[in-house]
Amino acid sequence: MSAEVESFFASRWVEQPPHVTARAGGLPAGFRAAGVACGLKASGAKDLGLLVCDAEDATSAARFTRSSVLAAPVIICQERARLDGLRAIVANAGNANAATGRPGLDAAAKMQGAAAMAAGVEENRVAVASTGVIGVPLDVAPIMRGLLAAREGLRAEGDGDFSDAIRTTDAFEKRVSVEVALPSGTVRLAVQAKGAGMIEPRFATMLCFVQTDAAVTAETADLLLGVCVKRSFDRISVDGQLSTNDTVILMCSGASGVAVAPESEDELRLGEALDAVLRQIALLIVRDGEGSERVGRVVARGGHGPTVETAARAVANSPLVKAALNGGDPNWGRIAQAVGGGLVDAAPLELDIAIEGVPVCRAGAVVPYDVEALAAAVRGPEVEYVIELPGEGAETEVFFSDLSHGYVTINADYTT
Amino acid sequence: MSAEVESFFASRWVEQPPHVTARAGGLPAGFRAAGVACGLKASGAKDLGLLVCDAEDATSAARFTRSSVLAAPVIICQERARLDGLRAIVANAGNANAATGRPGLDAAAKMQGAAAMAAGVEENRVAVASTGVIGVPLDVAPIMRGLLAAREGLRAEGDGDFSDAIRTTDAFEKRVSVEVALPSGTVRLAVQAKGAGMIEPRFATMLCFVQTDAAVTAETADLLLGVCVKRSFDRISVDGQLSTNDTVILMCSGASGVAVAPESEDELRLGEALDAVLRQIALLIVRDGEGSERVGRVVARGGHGPTVETAARAVANSPLVKAALNGGDPNWGRIAQAVGGGLVDAAPLELDIAIEGVPVCRAGAVVPYDVEALAAAVRGPEVEYVIELPGEGAETEVFFSDLSHGYVTINADYTT
Repeated sequence: MSAEVESFFASRWVEQPPHVTARAGGLPAGFRAAGVACGLKASGAKDLGLLVCDAEDATSAARFTRSSVLAAPVIICQERARLDGLRAIVANAGNANAATGRPGLDAAAKMQGAAAMAAGVEENRVAVASTGVIGVPLDVAPIMRGLLAAREGLRAEGDGDFSDAIRTTDAFEKRVSVEVALPSGTVRLAVQAKGAGMIEPRFATMLCFVQTDAAVTAETADLLLGVCVKRSFDRISVDGQLSTNDTVILMCSGASGVAVAPESEDELRLGEALDAVLRQIALLIVRDGEGSERVGRVVARGGHGPTVETAARAVANSPLVKAALNGGDPNWGRIAQAVGGGLVDAAPLELDIAIEGVPVCRAGAVVPYDVEALAAAVRGPEVEYVIELPGEGAETEVFFSDLSHGYVTINADYTT
Repeated sequence: MSAEVESFFASRWVEQPPHVTARAGGLPAGFRAAGVACGLKASGAKDLGLLVCDAEDATSAARFTRSSVLAAPVIICQERARLDGLRAIVANAGNANAATGRPGLDAAAKMQGAAAMAAGVEENRVAVASTGVIGVPLDVAPIMRGLLAAREGLRAEGDGDFSDAIRTTDAFEKRVSVEVALPSGTVRLAVQAKGAGMIEPRFATMLCFVQTDAAVTAETADLLLGVCVKRSFDRISVDGQLSTNDTVILMCSGASGVAVAPESEDELRLGEALDAVLRQIALLIVRDGEGSERVGRVVARGGHGPTVETAARAVANSPLVKAALNGGDPNWGRIAQAVGGGLVDAAPLELDIAIEGVPVCRAGAVVPYDVEALAAAVRGPEVEYVIELPGEGAETEVFFSDLSHGYVTINADYTT
């Protein structure tokens, strides 16, 4: 077991459960992974990852983008993979294999078949994932060659290489290994994710692979993943842009010998661990939001769920709010504008706004506040906005990145 | 009559009607305007405009933002002004008088009263408009003093000063005077507008004041303005942000002696002139989109109106598409992603995409195209995207600005 690391649960918006300990790396028992450079990235960096579960009776659960323009690997996963019993993942960066038509589907199917051979598992137990540029035909020849190399490199400490291989514009890695003390015994959980732009959940907007050596039924895995995705990737936005390729997969090897029974204390504790880890991973994606310098959290409360959701999304996706967040500018008028513009034809809106606990607007009108103190408060790495709408009972939150010069630089010249 | 100018109808997306001639400036007969510096803008630039119609029987029509957070001047216009018989406009820049509560309403009412005195018209025939920062109490004392100076400065050639007084982050003025040859005689039409950021229609998102010396009934004015706003300000987006203050007002003095009867050839021709002028003004706002370097037009066609509208808006408001437009990057995969993300749960979407007439995607998959030719085509000042969805009969368009470093610079540090 690698050394304990203290820095993973860095956000004040994620509570580290007392029974969860972050470790420096390594996969849970029963998993091996590798990452190699096969030539899809012009830079020569790693661009092909293979992850394998050695347990024949492995269980799994998955979630995918709801975009109507689905990448070929997403279609192959949904149509040709046993999503409750996945044993391998092949993932490439540098080409999304999206909007590539029939040849793209063929390429994704070939990736699935070649990965099954490399992993020594049935074809329908392999998930395929791709990330990168959209609309460019994917040449599978380098992937076929790369899979042979990846097969040779599979190892229990391969999570770092696998994680590197799925990066695109990510400025830093999103990876963690944790130890989870359950009542029935200790299990491990590891996550490798990528994502920095084209991020707006519904639920997800990136690739995220999770492994545990707990023994979990497929039904429980699906339940836990569904709940945790709703509280993590479903609540973040970098740029309001739902991707064609988003994929989240949880795989359970059972190799720890610790069985997690439905509705048990074990299940609760494992769920808490997964929740904390995925929320922090989601926040890392927001923080990496292509050039982002600050992370915002908007909490919206009121009497009507859809209204609260619309208000929170309107704030999180407002380029004016995001630019103000970037500049450390306490321009709360833009919060009011964003909410009002999101909720049309409902004037007058009795809206309260507080920033970092400082009330600035009550019932739609400015209230006196300490301008200097507020200006200082919005210059930190995380800024919280609370919106109160009429009524009570509904509440939601969205985490969002700022809008920076870096975002423009990265996205003004990506393909060329 | 001032000299003819050739440069106003500059966009290929606006056709200059043969009976419309652009002039260098000046208001239609029966109108006078002024713009002064009263001290709201720290720079000392002009920030208070007054426009007066001398005709007792003037008619008018107006449209306002649908935001649920309405600025005080919008509320005062809607509740205390005869919108079909306006004779004066008072407008300030530097403070939006929005989210300012009861004191803000009092301030807007005082502006209305003081402008009525300065213009010599009844209070309920004065419209009030404000633009600038949201959520800062508006001090009316400088406006009161400024109105006395503005009164002294009222003149038929005051449209330039008035236009200057309503600018905020606008890099250039949006103003035109045209001569319109109607079958019954020649009339004039003048427009002064402002807008660069916080622009997404539904309909409008800026201030735009239009005057004509045609004699038009209030009903006809309302009809013409409604139709033309739907085809101009309703079809643009700088940043998807509906403002708290958007106001468009058309005023008709009748001073030309040319009466425009309902359903006459005169009405048709006047409508064509208003349509061309407002579309070009709307395009100027998009082009000025806070740092914008290129203007995009997305045309979406298919069998279902709301779907077509959603697809067009998704493209126009995608920061990834907008950043690619800024960079002159022919990254059409982002168009596919934006449409797919806007229209969730409808995969597989049989989507065709053409950029500047070059087909790049058919039935959701890439088709071979000349990469160099496309790359050159997207580096011009205007770029056109055509999206074809299944079915036919519905079509819409949205004009949008790019996402530039200038936008971030302007909006990261606006209040402070």
